[in-house]
Amino acid sequence: MANKKISIGLFGFGVVGQGLYDVLNHSQGLSASINTICVKDRNKKRKIDLFYFTYEKNDILNRKDIDVVVELIDNAQDALEIVTTAMKNGINVVTANKKMLADNFELLFKLQQENGVSLIYEGAVGGSIPIIRNLEEYYDNELLSSIRGLLNGSCNYILTCMELNNMSFADALAKAQQNGFAETDAWLDVAGFDTLNKLCLLTAHAFGVILKPEQVLTLGIQNISDDDILYARAKGLRIKLLATARKVGEKLHVFAMPHFVSKDSEFYNALYENNAIEVEGAFSDKQYFVGKGAGSYPTGSAVLSDISALTYKYRYGYRKLKKVKSQLGENLNAVHLLDNSINQKVYIRYKDKAELNGIEILEIDESYESKKINYLVATVSLKSLFHLKESRSQTVFVCAVS
Amino acid sequence: MANKKISIGLFGFGVVGQGLYDVLNHSQGLSASINTICVKDRNKKRKIDLFYFTYEKNDILNRKDIDVVVELIDNAQDALEIVTTAMKNGINVVTANKKMLADNFELLFKLQQENGVSLIYEGAVGGSIPIIRNLEEYYDNELLSSIRGLLNGSCNYILTCMELNNMSFADALAKAQQNGFAETDAWLDVAGFDTLNKLCLLTAHAFGVILKPEQVLTLGIQNISDDDILYARAKGLRIKLLATARKVGEKLHVFAMPHFVSKDSEFYNALYENNAIEVEGAFSDKQYFVGKGAGSYPTGSAVLSDISALTYKYRYGYRKLKKVKSQLGENLNAVHLLDNSINQKVYIRYKDKAELNGIEILEIDESYESKKINYLVATVSLKSLFHLKESRSQTVFVCAVS
Repeated sequence: MANKKISIGLFGFGVVGQGLYDVLNHSQGLSASINTICVKDRNKKRKIDLFYFTYEKNDILNRKDIDVVVELIDNAQDALEIVTTAMKNGINVVTANKKMLADNFELLFKLQQENGVSLIYEGAVGGSIPIIRNLEEYYDNELLSSIRGLLNGSCNYILTCMELNNMSFADALAKAQQNGFAETDAWLDVAGFDTLNKLCLLTAHAFGVILKPEQVLTLGIQNISDDDILYARAKGLRIKLLATARKVGEKLHVFAMPHFVSKDSEFYNALYENNAIEVEGAFSDKQYFVGKGAGSYPTGSAVLSDISALTYKYRYGYRKLKKVKSQLGENLNAVHLLDNSINQKVYIRYKDKAELNGIEILEIDESYESKKINYLVATVSLKSLFHLKESRSQTVFVCAVS
Repeated sequence: MANKKISIGLFGFGVVGQGLYDVLNHSQGLSASINTICVKDRNKKRKIDLFYFTYEKNDILNRKDIDVVVELIDNAQDALEIVTTAMKNGINVVTANKKMLADNFELLFKLQQENGVSLIYEGAVGGSIPIIRNLEEYYDNELLSSIRGLLNGSCNYILTCMELNNMSFADALAKAQQNGFAETDAWLDVAGFDTLNKLCLLTAHAFGVILKPEQVLTLGIQNISDDDILYARAKGLRIKLLATARKVGEKLHVFAMPHFVSKDSEFYNALYENNAIEVEGAFSDKQYFVGKGAGSYPTGSAVLSDISALTYKYRYGYRKLKKVKSQLGENLNAVHLLDNSINQKVYIRYKDKAELNGIEILEIDESYESKKINYLVATVSLKSLFHLKESRSQTVFVCAVS
């Protein structure tokens, strides 16, 4: 197998698809080439010969001479159909579609077992950082206690531009989009959904627990203002959109929200489109991984590495997942392992007191009101913040104080 | 195999061996237990039942019911005999003995192929950082351009104590030894030999080139003084013992020496016993890994992860090494790929001008002389520093200026 040239059917030729194409063309070690590329738009200009393109997915999915389907399209629903069809046809799949994966993890796990095919997706989390495979292989028997990370290159880019270059949120977002870091729908980035999807993938591979994205508290940076940046800067802090999955006894604490981080935190210096992930074990202490989390080539490289892994028949073992399943019984949902009843100290910047309605405040540390800005620093029940998921208020911003 | 309990024969019960014992006892996922422990010293107090111990290596090596030999002794020569005998007897081996590995890489590579056994050694480099397996698997087809790292926890600990806590070299070294970070023979740490051995392992797995430690320029921190720390601090720099393997065209630049690093460098914030490794690819940009590089549990965890990998028959593929070998012909030494003819800007602190004899100085940037301290900042031929390898002068200290 190692010497056979593998034939790739590629779906999507956007930022990552073109990155993969370039990286693949420069790779000497890997015996693989793109056979056919399936795209939607017939009228878009393509930088390579139209001979490679098709507009009909079955031109790839029904072909016997395609060894690997690489799915790099935007739309999660279309991606799901492509990926499941390929798997049912016995074709191994590489994807970077975190939304599709997080929304359908259970189904995709089962299809791998039933059809004896491999579905791998290192490019879906952490860009160029090899985190999924490390969680699968290296941390297999480690007593992991937590995994935390800055998982969205676009948000980190925006926050860095606001903090270091005094840019407004809108300008920083526009610049992230110009540079190709942001999702086509930037809302998925800034409201935290991309981070959330990745967090669900990490939780599955780190702890063997499949959570649905809707079960996990997620607050984004969509409502951040210059005032919040100034507040952080005055205290020598930076704001980072941090995803956390932590084991506490038999339960998991899983959530994603903005955090103030100090100079002592490894996350403080992870800037611009970098992603950063910290893995903590009972015995190995903390390991910290940093790398480009967005962009054409870094993600293309991660996809290439997956294609390479398929040349030696690599599959995720899902050992932790299988163990949890065998403990719970095959059909029992693992959601009861998720504990959302956590109290957390947060900074809440608001305009009108009424906006605090519904938030269960346990203890107030600071309270500031002025004509320009009002905020509380208070310990709240994390669960009572759920209604702020997807908030488009622009006048409420919540940030964890560690 | 996954459900069979694997039986471990352990050699050595020092810092790492005891760490492994504890980590293994707390691991729930791994079906493995220590069968017998072979040690040298009959009179040493042991913290577990003497029933487990033997003083005769063949009590492990000739046993049919031992699945894995874990070699964690100090002496590289004894280790080599244990490891090669085990491999010839068809037993898979986990080791963390970087000196043995670096000195005998070619032989140990061959024995794996000839005997169809696995020899893995994640604990030998980077402590808890999973670097070897990432180089083998993840960066397999990536166009790597360089790998650099702080590979010796003891040196980093000493430098951090000198820089942040104003300790003398001697006091800092004593503290590192008290904490169990230093090798039994601290000279191996401070003179850079431990770093050098690890660098040779990284070069083999990153670029597929086997170098002998004696071929690689290595300068340590054994001669560092408070004056050097003060010089760095005045310029906002820190001193780190940095190992580098860099691909330049078809050639490799490989060397280890102290470097001044600035705040902009990721290495600046890697403190105390942490190790840090930066991998740079043509397309994936930089990835940065940080973790505890020394100590009982972190290294024990890395060894445990190797044992776990053996339960699913993991072996290093050595794909890059095999490719280089096939290009060079099986018996051709790869040393001609190493290019030591590099010029490098360095700081040289010296006492007597005569100490500069033999160093080929190409251009002097700064020259300072006083009653207390003399130094040059100059571009020199790196090759001409080879005679300072193992220097015990205490009056000459060399540090790269990037």
